[in-house]
Amino acid sequence: MDEKIRVGVLGPEASFSEIAARKLFPRAEMIYFETISECIEAVPERVEYAVVPIENSLHGTVFETLDAITESGLKICAEKVIPVIHCLVGFGKLEGIEKIISHPQALAQCRKWIRKNLPGAKLEKVSSTSLAAKLVAELSSPSVAAISSREAARVFGLKVIVENIQDSENNATRFVCVSTKDSPRTGRDKTSIVFACRENRPGVLWEALGEFAKRGVNLTKIESRPSKKMLGEYIFYLDFEGHREDEKIKECISSLEKITAFLRILGSYPRDF
Amino acid sequence: MDEKIRVGVLGPEASFSEIAARKLFPRAEMIYFETISECIEAVPERVEYAVVPIENSLHGTVFETLDAITESGLKICAEKVIPVIHCLVGFGKLEGIEKIISHPQALAQCRKWIRKNLPGAKLEKVSSTSLAAKLVAELSSPSVAAISSREAARVFGLKVIVENIQDSENNATRFVCVSTKDSPRTGRDKTSIVFACRENRPGVLWEALGEFAKRGVNLTKIESRPSKKMLGEYIFYLDFEGHREDEKIKECISSLEKITAFLRILGSYPRDF
Repeated sequence: MDEKIRVGVLGPEASFSEIAARKLFPRAEMIYFETISECIEAVPERVEYAVVPIENSLHGTVFETLDAITESGLKICAEKVIPVIHCLVGFGKLEGIEKIISHPQALAQCRKWIRKNLPGAKLEKVSSTSLAAKLVAELSSPSVAAISSREAARVFGLKVIVENIQDSENNATRFVCVSTKDSPRTGRDKTSIVFACRENRPGVLWEALGEFAKRGVNLTKIESRPSKKMLGEYIFYLDFEGHREDEKIKECISSLEKITAFLRILGSYPRDF
Repeated sequence: MDEKIRVGVLGPEASFSEIAARKLFPRAEMIYFETISECIEAVPERVEYAVVPIENSLHGTVFETLDAITESGLKICAEKVIPVIHCLVGFGKLEGIEKIISHPQALAQCRKWIRKNLPGAKLEKVSSTSLAAKLVAELSSPSVAAISSREAARVFGLKVIVENIQDSENNATRFVCVSTKDSPRTGRDKTSIVFACRENRPGVLWEALGEFAKRGVNLTKIESRPSKKMLGEYIFYLDFEGHREDEKIKECISSLEKITAFLRILGSYPRDF
């Protein structure tokens, strides 16, 4: 038990993936990857767990993550929702800032704030908010700031000049933890499945959802996606309350299997919200 | 009728947004914007139409677009699906390439191809694939290539060294055209709506979908999203076949209105696929 748990996250250091992973594994050794697929493919040889983004409240579902989990045969064993709080970080004061460095999405998410508070600032785009913080730390000039998380500011020794500068209050990312096994029952669980219906006709999804409705199972997410194989064919991603070992959920799944062309349980895990 | 139609797209020149807009408006004047919100807010004062991405087969729904359309009160009047075909573009031959410049997503989407064909190449991340093509054109060196679209290569005078290098065959982006009005009936239409149910209990979505199922209306997309107001409250985005002026669709909508807390028709428009 001396050996540290290794957890794969998207780099660089102090990324939102690492923030999420630290909530689940405070003392683990973090291994940084460039892409979500590489991170998931590293389980179980290089890391025991991978913590990867699965949806964002502004940018939607990360299908790259769902595809990689489905292909790998790995299971979701935990989830963690992290609010995305953008901060203006650097060395100087608000008044002296002439240039802001950040990820294009972060710059877009703080557009109204920048327009109001630093209308003359030059914007420079880089590939991540934590890289922006790192660059500002290296430049060490009071006229250059980054938009990043509070954690990235701390890691790179920067001051938080203004906190919470994003235009929308509803910016959060849901991360999942992927491993070789899912989680045992806790009584407050969620299950994620993916399935395709056997026929493509009006009402077939309605029939599938009826299996959950008539057993009083609450859905927490539904999403359709065109199948890769045929135009007009769809696959569905469903999250619902309950564990795959609950009697009611077992019944839902086995009824659903009668009308689906394929069905895969991505995992049962404790609910984070 | 001498004056050109102005269409807002995400810049820079030769972006995938411009490619989509050109399919809908071959001779329009394109006005470039930095963010989706700015592009949509420019309608109708600065541009007659905005063409913006609404979902990608790998990266999911662009909620920024759905939010901006919903807030603006504008309507979706057309859709266009554009396959994302990544090319290695530049001046030299495959053998001599030492550095590849592109958007982080494009580099990630071509990861396996790069690993196999240019394992030693240095990767440089920039904020768009068309900017990458532009930078390579300026550098004018046979050892530096970009990953971009064929169109961006053409615009910036680059050679397509290898076409179709993305790892997944199923990479396409759906764009919508936004304006002050939606489209008249063509007989082959689609309608997009957003709604929230009045109650949050198991089965309420199932009842809502029953209105479509019992009238034989085919759904083409469904997605749930946590409401901004309350945890556990959801809003739903639905695309289905038919026009809001079709008798059957009118019935669906008015039945749905009885069980929804709010419902908004985002527009009816001809189906692209």
